[in-house]
Formats: sequence, structure tokens, C-alpha cells
Amino acid sequence: MAEKTWVRMVTAQTPTNIAVIKYWGKRDETLILPVNDSISVTLDPAHLCTITTVAVSPSFDQDRMWLNGKEISLSGGRYQNCLREIRARACEVEDKEKGIKIAKNDWEKLHVHVASYNNFPTAAGLASSAAGFACLVFALAKLMKAKEDNCELSAIARQGSGSACRSLFGGFVKWIMGKAEDGSDSLAVQLVDEKHWDELVIIIAVVSSRQKETSSTTGMRDSVETSLLLQHRAKEVVPKRIKQMEEAIKNRDFGSFAQLTCADSNQFHAVCLDTCPPIFYMNDTSHRIISCVEKWNCSEGTPQVAYTFDAGPNAVLIAHNRKAATQLIQKLLFCFPPSSDADLNSYVIGDKSILKDAGIEDIMDVEALPPPPEIKGCPEMQRRCELFHLYETW
Amino acid sequence: MAEKTWVRMVTAQTPTNIAVIKYWGKRDETLILPVNDSISVTLDPAHLCTITTVAVSPSFDQDRMWLNGKEISLSGGRYQNCLREIRARACEVEDKEKGIKIAKNDWEKLHVHVASYNNFPTAAGLASSAAGFACLVFALAKLMKAKEDNCELSAIARQGSGSACRSLFGGFVKWIMGKAEDGSDSLAVQLVDEKHWDELVIIIAVVSSRQKETSSTTGMRDSVETSLLLQHRAKEVVPKRIKQMEEAIKNRDFGSFAQLTCADSNQFHAVCLDTCPPIFYMNDTSHRIISCVEKWNCSEGTPQVAYTFDAGPNAVLIAHNRKAATQLIQKLLFCFPPSSDADLNSYVIGDKSILKDAGIEDIMDVEALPPPPEIKGCPEMQRRCELFHLYETW
Repeated sequence: MAEKTWVRMVTAQTPTNIAVIKYWGKRDETLILPVNDSISVTLDPAHLCTITTVAVSPSFDQDRMWLNGKEISLSGGRYQNCLREIRARACEVEDKEKGIKIAKNDWEKLHVHVASYNNFPTAAGLASSAAGFACLVFALAKLMKAKEDNCELSAIARQGSGSACRSLFGGFVKWIMGKAEDGSDSLAVQLVDEKHWDELVIIIAVVSSRQKETSSTTGMRDSVETSLLLQHRAKEVVPKRIKQMEEAIKNRDFGSFAQLTCADSNQFHAVCLDTCPPIFYMNDTSHRIISCVEKWNCSEGTPQVAYTFDAGPNAVLIAHNRKAATQLIQKLLFCFPPSSDADLNSYVIGDKSILKDAGIEDIMDVEALPPPPEIKGCPEMQRRCELFHLYETW
Repeated sequence: MAEKTWVRMVTAQTPTNIAVIKYWGKRDETLILPVNDSISVTLDPAHLCTITTVAVSPSFDQDRMWLNGKEISLSGGRYQNCLREIRARACEVEDKEKGIKIAKNDWEKLHVHVASYNNFPTAAGLASSAAGFACLVFALAKLMKAKEDNCELSAIARQGSGSACRSLFGGFVKWIMGKAEDGSDSLAVQLVDEKHWDELVIIIAVVSSRQKETSSTTGMRDSVETSLLLQHRAKEVVPKRIKQMEEAIKNRDFGSFAQLTCADSNQFHAVCLDTCPPIFYMNDTSHRIISCVEKWNCSEGTPQVAYTFDAGPNAVLIAHNRKAATQLIQKLLFCFPPSSDADLNSYVIGDKSILKDAGIEDIMDVEALPPPPEIKGCPEMQRRCELFHLYETW
């Protein structure tokens, strides 16, 4: 090993993903094995992603991690599982220029420092842990030159946070629940890449950026233990929906896609409500958004927008195309008007050109933030669709 | 028949009932046959009841009805079914003093006038149609001297509004779904009378007195057609719960009673949410009430209060005893304080003595309204438990 002064660093950026067929319920709490398959869409990393820098140096005397600038403990089983699994796959690293040489066996003795940053609210039902663990595993794999492909890495990220396994690909991704007791076949595969259905536009209506009262982990466990509907959903309903959803995505059939997406979101929240004590992730504003979309879709005769809600009140709205997205923005601004002194630049972020299409001129062009240095994002993770953020003033 | 000037009148009062194991879904829309058994508690008629006067006179040239002072059409199938079934069971009536004699066959030619009044908001999820149709059928049966007992009358009331069949008894009542295609065995039976468990105190928190957006009839039909959880609930979950609930009531086991009541209310609303488009009867205030009760029950270690919500946001809260009811009132007034200029006499109605127990002195004694004349309430319908109304200022 080289002298003690060197530091090797890798920075990676990983987008979050939103399930359109939901994951809710584990059959194995430790290995994080789900009770059903799930399918997600990967979001544009420009506005909803985790950026993680991992560093290794002989001068580090323990593994440490900072999340959004605040040190957090790595002692939890989920972090330990990810670190152990990646270390077991670490390979020799040599950087002659910097005088670094790390043999395969050295990784057991070296410690890592991790700095992770979410560019969106943590634990508000926007799948922050999905992007977080996917990014951690991906960055560590690059740092340690692990040779596993993203499919194999997904099975490791899964042990950090179940839905993290779906964040290692762009486009539409399926998490196969698997059958093996050791979880080796519970991993993510890409169904189609982000180019397959690129007319879709995703708009997120942020109803609240507060942390949710019931964490997904606790809520899911309570549902498995107490809901009398969950197993029926997992065994009888979801398997059929997964097939239908794969067909809808393959054929770019927005009508079926929207119907399945909305129905599955509602059924997931139904199972939460059937839990004892009941879990409410949606609130009256979420309900108003649903009613607004349902009425619009009904009046058009064919769905224009699908909605889905994760473990929080924020709406993820998937518009059929740019025209529908423009109309959606108009409807949202009409139903949930910003206060008169609101800065629309902070009220709505994302691709401002859609706002201009929607007839809203009071938007300055804002420079995109410069990308962080030395980003190792895999190509599949890049831009899927436009993304908007309606900030909470309602 | 006597000369044209006479009028024969009967007035009846019928309480509403609240299901603790819910009815949601019909297997026959016309006969109103349910997909599962249900169990209800009958409320004190003093504060939540229908008062109906039915009159017959040779001078009436058509059947007419007034609901809360406004004439409504009787042409609907539900009214026609009830009128037809009761007329078919009409018997000879003689009142020598008034010079009235109606032969069995005369009833086919005579018309009735019906005046019905609810002392609570109509169609706000407080089962107004249940009390309404039960009272109509009961009053008509008395008017026409039908010899059927309340069990048999319940099968007629069921054809007006399903849950009406449970309002013909006090105490706890079970609506047996039946098997016969003609619905003849789909009727209500009393499980225990109102004296069996008389320490229970019911408090209704009126969150909104507005009419609900989705009527029970429409919502139920949509659920049967679109919810993939409803049949599982009806076939697998409810039959077991019915048995457990009967046991809990028989043994006055409040712990089991509360657990089953809350779980079944939540599951009913879960099925509503699983409907396409989703139905939301509860709102954020309903959720706050549930959280408040769940936290309290959890902190006490044993349930103090059960909650159940029908097709609306109003909470029906069943307290274990008077002490728990007193504490509940205190908690509700603390969590949902009346505005400073609110008249507590209208904010809280019912047995004011519980308010005094709760340390709230600013309550005048209000005279009970005089009872309407010539009430033919059957004895089983009388007082079951105290009842409160928290008016909407939240």
C-alpha cells in the first residue's frame, strides 16, 4: 500500500424512482425480500437525485457517513450489509499517477468516508432512501472497482432499501421478487430504457416536504402483520397487474398504463388504511389532486394524466405528452394558486419552457447548477423525462 | 268505506343505526341483497331519528311524501317496493268512534300521504336513509294493521334502503345476508337488546353536515364493479369478524369489540379507496380523530373508545363507559376547541350532565322538545345510550 497521505474519491449521482406497481410488504425483513414484484419509472436526476461521494484513505480510522451535511451512524444493519457485500466484491485498484495501489485484500482493512446529498426533501414520500442506497452501492462499487453489473449491484442495494434496487437503471424497471431464500434472485431488471417512451412528462406536486409520521419500514411491517387485504393483493392482484403493466409499457398504451398506475396507487393506500393502527399517507390536498385528475381524464374520455402517491402526500403525475403536461400545469396553478408574492421560480422548478407553453411568462431563466466534479453516473441513469416541483403553499 | 272526510294517521319514530361490521356491496341491486352479513348498534332516537307521520284518507288522490318539509317524488323503485309490500300485507281497520272502516281490499285503492322529518343532517353519512325507510315501513304497517313482526318488516324496509332493516330493533342487530334468490331470508335479527350492554356511551363528532359527494348507492355499485379487494373482504374477512363480533358483544368484551369495530371501519374505507375512481369519505379531520383515539387507546394499554365512520367524515365514537366518555369529551374539546363566541349549547347536544362531569359548566339546562303526538315507537327502539353532537366549527 502507498504512504498514508493519499485519498481516492468517487462521486456518483443516482436518480430516484417511483413505483407504478407498488412494493408494500416484506417476506424477509433482514434480506429485504418483497411479497410481490414491482415496476417503477426512473426520474430525471436533475431535480430528484442523490449525489454521493465516497472516499477511501489509509488515514481514515473508521467508516463514517454524512447525509445532507450531518453525520449519521453507519452502525445500522442496512448500511453494514451494503458495505460488507461490496467489500467482498472489491478488486485491485492502481493509480500510478497518484501512487495509489490497493490490493484486493487491503479493502478489508481500509475505511471509507461517505458524503451524500439529496436535492429534494428526505423521507417525505419521494423515495429518498431509494436513490440514497442505490447511489451508495454504485459509488462504492466504482471506488472498489467491483466487476458486477447493475443487475447484480441492485441485489446489494436492495439490502439497504428495497426500492433502491430499482434506481440502478433508467427507463422502466422491474424488481423481480425472486424465490430463493438467500435473496440472490431478488433483483432489478430494466424493462425498457428511457428512450422507449420519451413523450411521457412527469410532474411532482409537492404537497408537503415534512418528514412522514410513519416510516415506510414501520408501516410496511405493520401492514404485513395486521392487514387482512395485503396477502390477497400480493398473491392475487399484483401478479396480473405486473403482466398488464409490462404489456402497457411495451405498447406505449397510455390508457392502460394510467388505469393500472392509479388503481395500484389507490390499492396500496387502501392496504395502509386496512393496517392496524391505520396509516394515512395522503391528505385532503392529495385527494383534491386525485379528484381533479379523475374528472379531467373522465371528461376527455381517455386518460391524459396518471397519478401515483408513495408513502407521503406528494403527487407524482405522469402526463401522456407535453401538451397534457402543459394543461396539467395550468390546472394545478388554477386549483392551487401561488400566493401573490410567491416567486414562481421557486414555486415551480424544472423545465421552465413548459411553463411558457402554459402561458406563464413571469419566469426568469435560471442557470442550471454546475454538475459536481467527477460524476460516475451510468448512462442508463440519465434523463428520462421533464420534472416539475410545485412547492407547498397550499 | 266511510264518507270522504276522514283521515287516519299514525306517527312513528325510528332511530338510526351505525354498523360496527359494515355493509358495503350488493349482490342484487333491485332486491338490495348484500354481499356479507353486517352488525349494527342502534342509536338513541332522542337525537338521531326519523319521525314519520303516515295518513290515509279517501280524499287523497295519489301517494305523496314530504321529507323535511319538502315534497319529494315517490315514483322511485325503492319507495314503490316498500309501499307495494306493505299494501299486500294490509288488514281490515275499524275505528268506530271516528266512523272509519277499511276493508282489506280497500287498501289497494286508497292513497297515503307521508311526512318525514330527520332531526339530523340528511345524507352526511349518518344513515339518514336507514332510519327513514325503517320508519316509513313501520308507520305504514301500523297504519294498515299489518300483522308481521319486526323481523318480517325488516325484509321490507331492506328493499327501501339496505341498512334500514337494522333500524327496526334496538340494542345490537345483525342483518343476515341470506341465500334465497328472492331475498326472503335477508333480514335483521336482534342479537341483544339495549339493556345488555348499557354502559356504552356513543358520541358523534359531526365533522361536516354537508351532503356527501358520492352517495352510498353509487359508491357501493362502483366498489362491487371495480374493487379487487371487495369480494375477498366479503367472503374471507367478514364471516370470521361477524362471529368474533357476536362473541365480543355477548361477553361485553370491550377490547375485542373496539379492535373489530375500528378495523372493520378502516377496511370499509380501504375498499372505497380501492374503487375506481377512488371514494374518499373521511377527511383530514376524520384522520385526526382516529389518531387521537388510537394514541389514547395505546397509552391506556386497553381500548377506551372505538371509532367507526360510515359514508361520510363524521366520527361515531363508542366509549367503554361514562368515565371514558367524559374523558373523550374533554379530549375532543381540547383538540377541536369551539370558537370563543360559540354557544356550547349548540356545539354539544345530548346529555348535558356528561359535560358537567367533564368540568364544563357553561351549559344551560335545555328543555327536551315535547314528543310529537301519538308516537308508535316499538319498545325495542327506545334509548340505547347517550348521544352527543359536536358541531362543525373545525
